Parts: sequence; structure tokens; C-alpha cells
Amino acid sequence: MRKRGIRITVNRTAGSKKCRQRDSEGIFPSILGHEGAGVVREVGAGVTSVKPGDHVIPLYAPECRQCKSCLSGKTNLCTAIRATQGQGLMPDGTTRFSYKGQPIFHYMGCSTFSNFTVLPEIAVAKIRKDAPFDKSCYIGCGVTTGVGAVINSAKVKPGSNVIVFGLGGIGLNVLQAARMVGADRIIGVDLNDRKAEWGTRFGMTHFYNPRGKSNAEVVAALVALTDGGADYTFDCTGNTEVMRQALEACHRGWGVSTVIGVAEAGKEISTRPFQLVTGRVWQGSAFGGAKGRTDVPRIVDWYMHGKIEIDPMITHVFRLEEINKGFDLMHAGTSIRSVVVF
Amino acid sequence: MRKRGIRITVNRTAGSKKCRQRDSEGIFPSILGHEGAGVVREVGAGVTSVKPGDHVIPLYAPECRQCKSCLSGKTNLCTAIRATQGQGLMPDGTTRFSYKGQPIFHYMGCSTFSNFTVLPEIAVAKIRKDAPFDKSCYIGCGVTTGVGAVINSAKVKPGSNVIVFGLGGIGLNVLQAARMVGADRIIGVDLNDRKAEWGTRFGMTHFYNPRGKSNAEVVAALVALTDGGADYTFDCTGNTEVMRQALEACHRGWGVSTVIGVAEAGKEISTRPFQLVTGRVWQGSAFGGAKGRTDVPRIVDWYMHGKIEIDPMITHVFRLEEINKGFDLMHAGTSIRSVVVF
Ligand SMILES: [Zn+2]
Ligand SMILES: [Zn+2]
Repeated sequence: MRKRGIRITVNRTAGSKKCRQRDSEGIFPSILGHEGAGVVREVGAGVTSVKPGDHVIPLYAPECRQCKSCLSGKTNLCTAIRATQGQGLMPDGTTRFSYKGQPIFHYMGCSTFSNFTVLPEIAVAKIRKDAPFDKSCYIGCGVTTGVGAVINSAKVKPGSNVIVFGLGGIGLNVLQAARMVGADRIIGVDLNDRKAEWGTRFGMTHFYNPRGKSNAEVVAALVALTDGGADYTFDCTGNTEVMRQALEACHRGWGVSTVIGVAEAGKEISTRPFQLVTGRVWQGSAFGGAKGRTDVPRIVDWYMHGKIEIDPMITHVFRLEEINKGFDLMHAGTSIRSVVVF
Repeated sequence: MRKRGIRITVNRTAGSKKCRQRDSEGIFPSILGHEGAGVVREVGAGVTSVKPGDHVIPLYAPECRQCKSCLSGKTNLCTAIRATQGQGLMPDGTTRFSYKGQPIFHYMGCSTFSNFTVLPEIAVAKIRKDAPFDKSCYIGCGVTTGVGAVINSAKVKPGSNVIVFGLGGIGLNVLQAARMVGADRIIGVDLNDRKAEWGTRFGMTHFYNPRGKSNAEVVAALVALTDGGADYTFDCTGNTEVMRQALEACHRGWGVSTVIGVAEAGKEISTRPFQLVTGRVWQGSAFGGAKGRTDVPRIVDWYMHGKIEIDPMITHVFRLEEINKGFDLMHAGTSIRSVVVF
């Protein structure tokens, strides 16, 4: 486990909701924020992959390229610094933040709601310098989680039918990735009719509002819309009942359902095993199955080349002093992403 | 949907327990039996793929090569004759059995506990003539279900760690297929210590008896035995709690759990979605993902070449008049497979 650190100035950082999956990492007092982008100011001894002046995106999912997980080639869930990151600490067991002498913990290894932060070398992705920070910051989680789930986790094929449950900041990225890889029918499901316009903007071909319908009715409607069930479904809601609908709306024989949303603690998913025995696959995706240092720079390229869109999703921009407005909008459901600029 | 039929003499047929997955197809009165092998006696008009004298294995999972499922190349769950088979009828809606003028239904499209039966052309696999009927009959379900789950459904890779829950007639075939494809550690799990010897005979390297242990204890013990979790697990018990253990004993990041066992009606599987989000895959397998007409003859070849064993699993042979002894032994748990010879 490397203990070298790099210091970056966080020039731009997104005031998004935190990934609840990491709730267990919420150790207080801490500096929040896990989606950001900035410039390297200093590097510690032995750091070779980045240098001062480089543009980087902090990675809450690091990529050491040396642990059993990284070497397997089968997962992005690097375990090199998991224990200390979960305790709000750097790999050497220290925190690099303090306030009036009191230690302040790191959050998800990133703490991007800060002018300066400190990150391990394995937890920064070096990106091109012409990418604007106030857009590329979103690739630090939401964009990569949605796009990666389609291309890395589900491996959606051209001509497929896809259903996306939940058209928030992740779901919209699932939609646009399904469009990018050539899916045929791309169905968006959301309780909020206003999301239909958003979905269409990012590639959705059909909208379905399940309000007031039973699980069985929702599944039947979606199976009818997809001539027997979807080739791929994605849950971006975190609701375990919706996760079940997403599995059961898959086509018999080959449908793959990918759980992206993070459920409330203690909630469980259930189904009849017959759903699996008859050929449906239930899987999940964390950070879009993306290897941060390798894949995040490619997604930045895709953004710069116009293969994916980010600009319309950045609905609000605030200064750090106004950050609580971002949380208010998030709770009100009237923003996709609010970004804080420094 | 083809309506041509072929008539075969069922020279040998296995008195195994029926696949409970098809319980819904149990329409009485019927002639039971779904694992068999025999000689074609007659073919109906238009039948071209088999002729009188050919040796065949009846297929409860047909392979029409023309329906959406068959043409997908992604599943073995042919739907060409599903509706009528589920009603105990031939594809033309008739039954070909009767007793004193009363119609007798077909069972799982096979009805192998009979001297003669009638099958659609798409539901027979033509096999080599030197394969003994009293062994190859078992390839009609148990062998193919276990071997196919490993090679078609899970696609187990050489060097993998594998856990098999339930060492009955299916589990033993999962074990020997894992051995055949070069798995490293092959762990068998069964409540019956007598199964350890059976498992070892078919490739098991470690035995674990979970009796008296909690779900969490079982998972912890198996994760320890596999250095963090198995690459592949298989449930061959039909117990939904065991299915959960099988998923949770998979390695974080890439473990794949395949449900083979058939649960009691109404039972559901559950887990925390976190298990999926952190990289475990939950799937199922029916008839080992095998395409009957294509794959069953290959598995017969593998048996004849000694790549898989069947002889030791045929623990009892009876004449048709003694068939109820086979059911008694099955209920007592003292047989693997009893075969009825005509
Ligand atoms: Zn690693
Ligand atoms: Zn078919």
C-alpha cells in the first residue's frame, strides 16, 4: 500500500448528494464532497504519475493496479486503501485536515468541498487540460457511474432494448450511454412526468410513469413495450421494489438487470428464483465498473468530443458560501447537479 | 410450430425424481418419466432429422432452431411447443396415450416410464449407437443439467475456485464438470457426511458440512476456504436460504452464483443489494443452458470418451414392475439414480 500523497487545489467541485453507498464512511467532523476536478499543486516523495500543474479528478474508487482486485482484470473495486478510506483517513492513518487544532476527517477519500485537499497517488485520474473543471468534475462520479454501468457492467450491445428506472443524475447518464452504444428502444421510467423531457434530451425513446400501478402492472406494461422484456434494465432509484421490477421486466432467457441505485440500510431485494432459472441475470455496478485512472480520462475525452453531454445536466452553479442552496435544490428535486466553483 | 411426430421405443428409462421446476406441468392422469433413451421405431410425415433405428434421447427442453429464443443464440429455452407441452399434450393439441378409452397426458413432453412414447422431432437428440441406454438416459436431464451449468451457464474457467451446494444427482455432475474444466479448489457442501466420499469420487477437493451453523457462519467458513470467496458457486438444493449463502460466498468483484435447484412454490430468494453492487452476479440455469439436439450428443461423446463418468451414479437398476422401489430409495436418500430397464 503506497503512502505517497499528492496535494491538489480543487478549483471546481460539485455539490451533489453523496453516494449513499458510502454512508458507512460518514465520519464526522469531515469535509464533504466526492465529485471534483482541479490542479495538482504539490506531490509527495516518490509520486511519478502526476506532477504539479497536471489537471486531475479525485477518485473515491482508487486504482492501484497491484492488489488482487486490480490484477484480476475482472473488477474495479480496488482494495488497496479501503480500510483507511473507510475511517476517513489517508493510507498512512493520518488526516490532513484540521480546524482550530481539532482533526477533521476526509470524506470518501476526496473531500472536494475544499480549496485544497490531499489524495493518494492511486486516487487521482490525470485528465486533459482543455476540459472545463465545472463540467468534468461530474465525471468524478455521476457521469462515470451511469455511462460505465452501460459499457463496462452490462456491456449493452447495439440494437438492444433498454429500460432505465429513475431519471435523475445517474439515470440520464445511463440513457445517453445506451444511445451512444446504439441501443434501439430506450425506455425511461420515472414517477415525475417532468422527467420525460429530460430523458428525451438524453436519448430516451419512450417514457413510462408507474404512478399508482402495482409491481405486476408495471412489469406487464414494460414487457409489452419491449416485445417480451428488455435485454438490459438498470435501477437508478435505490428502491428495492423497483429493483425487483427491473429484474422481472427483463426478457426470459437473457435479460440482464444491473442495480446501480443504493438502497436504504437494511433493505433487501427479493424475487422468485424461477426468474433466474429462466435466464435473467441480476448484477450490480459500482462507479460504473470503471477503473478510475484508466477510464475516467477516456470519458473526459468522450465529453470533449461530444460523444456524451454534460453541460445541460449542470443546472446550477454556486460559490462555496452558497453551497447549502445546492442541497436545498437537491432535496426539492429541482436540480440535476449543482456545482460549486472556487 | 412443427406438428410432425416420431415414435420411439423407450428401451431404457430412468426412474429419477421429476424436475420440480416443471411441477406446473403435472397434469393427471399421465405417464411420468423425463430421463430416457431409446430407439426410433417410426417417424411421422416430414420428419427428416431422425429415422427408424436411430438411437435418441427425449428432450423435455426442445430445440426448434427457429423461435425467437433459439435464434437469439443466447438461451436454450426454446418456446416452440411450450404451451402444449405445459398442458400435457403434443404440439397438435392431442395426447397419444390412452387407457381403457380415457386419455392419458404426456409428462414434460417425454413420458419415459413407458415402452413406447411419441415425441416431436424437435424434442429428440440423436446419439451414437454404441452408448449404453441404461447410462446415457441420465444425460436426458441430470448429467446435462449439472455439466451444462458449469460449461454453458457459469462458463467456469481453469484455475477457479468453485463451491457446490448439495451433492445429489445434479451436484455430483457439477463437481465432475468443474474438474473437467480445470477448476482448482472444488468445495462440496452437504448436510450428509456420507456425501463426502461421493463428492471426492467426482472431483471434490474439500468437503464442508454446514449442519448447525447460521447463514453467516456458513458464508464466513466458505469465504475463508476460498481466500475471499468463490469464483463460482452453484445451488443444487432448491433451498432458498442456501441460494442466499451461495451468492454471499462469492468473491467480491466477480463471483458468479448459479441457481440450479428448484425452490418450493412461493419461496423467494433475498439478499442485500450491496452484494450485487459490490460485484457478485446472481443467475440461474435450466437444463444446464444446453441446447438439447446440439449439446446432448456431445455430452454422450464425453461419456464414451471417459471425460465424464456416469456409471457410479447409477446406483440401482429395476424392471418397470419394480419402479416404486426407485421412488422409495429416492425418498430415503440412499440412491443417486435408479434406472428402469424394459
Ligand atoms: Zn487495487
Ligand atoms: Zn426454439
